[in-house]
Amino acid sequence: MTGPGHGMAADIAEQPEVLARLLAPAQADAVARVAAAIARRRPRHVVLTARGTSDHAALYAAYLTEIRLGLPAGLASPSAITVFGARPDLAQALVIAVSQSGGSSDIAEVVTVARASGALTVAVTNNPASPLAAAAELTVDIAAGEERAVAATKTYTAELLALLMLIEGVRAGDGRLPAAERAALASLPSLAAGLLADPTAVDLAQRYRFADRVVTTGRGYAYPTAREAALKLMETSYLPALAFSGADLLHGPLAMADPDVPVLAVVGGGPGGAAMRQVLAKLGERRADIVTVGPADVPGAAARIPVPAVDERYAPLLDILPLQRLALALALARGADPDAPRGLNKVTSTR
Amino acid sequence: MTGPGHGMAADIAEQPEVLARLLAPAQADAVARVAAAIARRRPRHVVLTARGTSDHAALYAAYLTEIRLGLPAGLASPSAITVFGARPDLAQALVIAVSQSGGSSDIAEVVTVARASGALTVAVTNNPASPLAAAAELTVDIAAGEERAVAATKTYTAELLALLMLIEGVRAGDGRLPAAERAALASLPSLAAGLLADPTAVDLAQRYRFADRVVTTGRGYAYPTAREAALKLMETSYLPALAFSGADLLHGPLAMADPDVPVLAVVGGGPGGAAMRQVLAKLGERRADIVTVGPADVPGAAARIPVPAVDERYAPLLDILPLQRLALALALARGADPDAPRGLNKVTSTR
Repeated sequence: MTGPGHGMAADIAEQPEVLARLLAPAQADAVARVAAAIARRRPRHVVLTARGTSDHAALYAAYLTEIRLGLPAGLASPSAITVFGARPDLAQALVIAVSQSGGSSDIAEVVTVARASGALTVAVTNNPASPLAAAAELTVDIAAGEERAVAATKTYTAELLALLMLIEGVRAGDGRLPAAERAALASLPSLAAGLLADPTAVDLAQRYRFADRVVTTGRGYAYPTAREAALKLMETSYLPALAFSGADLLHGPLAMADPDVPVLAVVGGGPGGAAMRQVLAKLGERRADIVTVGPADVPGAAARIPVPAVDERYAPLLDILPLQRLALALALARGADPDAPRGLNKVTSTR
Repeated sequence: MTGPGHGMAADIAEQPEVLARLLAPAQADAVARVAAAIARRRPRHVVLTARGTSDHAALYAAYLTEIRLGLPAGLASPSAITVFGARPDLAQALVIAVSQSGGSSDIAEVVTVARASGALTVAVTNNPASPLAAAAELTVDIAAGEERAVAATKTYTAELLALLMLIEGVRAGDGRLPAAERAALASLPSLAAGLLADPTAVDLAQRYRFADRVVTTGRGYAYPTAREAALKLMETSYLPALAFSGADLLHGPLAMADPDVPVLAVVGGGPGGAAMRQVLAKLGERRADIVTVGPADVPGAAARIPVPAVDERYAPLLDILPLQRLALALALARGADPDAPRGLNKVTSTR
């Protein structure tokens, strides 16, 4: 298959299979071994480092770490180390670097510096032969297969699942997930396949054909989804997309919301979704055009992209799928080629 | 004085005086005492928590902490604690909460939870009688005086300076800044006054009168300036403004840059500014309309807002001033009232 967007479409369609592969014993056991090694070392805090799409997977992992492990977690700015020469004492830290390619030199440098200061370092990557994997003490292979398009899709959901399995494995202590968790995770590939067969998101691309901007928002576990959706829309459709946590949206950016501003709001069924209601009510007062992604209708929204009702921890693995498809459909409607966005390369090298 | 924007104009104009007040012995000694108390406790890592404009001051403090103290620093998502019930072990942490009003209940809750888990907690606020100050063990009063406009300006630069004095005081050990540092800081109020007399930024508002979006960017210490400039433009002029670290811009959003996209790039004289050259070259290839904020001309830029050449640590206190004035002038040109942006309140309460 060739032609604009075929690579991205194939990457998106492959996600149920990618998730199933990661959950199968060969990969799951490998992740469990890394998780058990982390649990033995008893880190006191977690530092994540990543760029672009992988930074959104890292943000998801930060929420998981704080909520599920009770460990402080933060996202490191690589430039403090790579540009300004910072040498933070990371002796009690677990440092997790997330990179699809494993080829960004700045992320590898952060891992090298962290390891030298005594941190336990873990690379989460689609390339276990990469410089990043070589720099880290432990590696989690997300095993997503080569990505065809420049815009990351299947590697994003694979990173999310690998990080979820890793962190829940650390919580378990021996790396092995509890049976109930394993059963719930095992249902994700078929839920993903069902979601990919739903036409709602692709139909919605019509709505944004002539939009000159869009706002995306979500809270907690759903905030990384809002960020990643914005990035997909920017890099494939060249649509300026502003992502905000629901709380930050009320601290200023709300002022620019008017009936001409389309808002994509990720509203799950748990505490994060409940906390979004206040945000949606305020957006409604400003008569913004709200489309939600979630398992249930929300008053005031003009439309909804339906997704299965799952634990909020799992929702990020599913909620992004229709948003990837929306970005792809919109790019094609606008005449862009999402497989090779102007100005971008698959591996971005920055200091 | 009344009329649209008079409050914001007065707040902006007051900044040299606000900075001088914070540097005078009464306030400087108070900050030094807090810094000495922190140094005695020897925290192993630093967690910052804030919302909106104060979150940008917190981001600046995170860079300072890693680069100048060699301590890992991260920005906490309040929702992990306030919405999802996370109870991270912060026994070895210094937790710094930054809030102009001290009235955001979620930030105070983060401090309360952190203090209960054994963290050393510090509130940096313009209201030492606020619930946030009551929740924290130590308080730094930024002493900026009441802010007239909803959009924060003088409280932002006061937060930046207070955090700089605090962190450099911790570095010194006894809270007292070295003489050379004191001398350099003492020059900031007059440099700020000179900058506020320069007409360039206000004249530039013409350029963006009909813009439908703008991209702001910077690296390292300058990244918070890019973020804060974007927020000012959104909340006063209702102009969608997308802020990216220079490195992240290359990981995707660059694709949406075209000759119609105005870019405001903060390019200082130190390592962060040098690292921006690669970003500007890429933006130039995409023929973006680049205006820089910095002490020297950069090839390919259409215009420059001149700022004094100072240490990159001090630049954020100055670089934001013309950008505040640009936001004010643009808001007035567009018929908005930046003193009372639609949809916003001075104290925002979120969970």
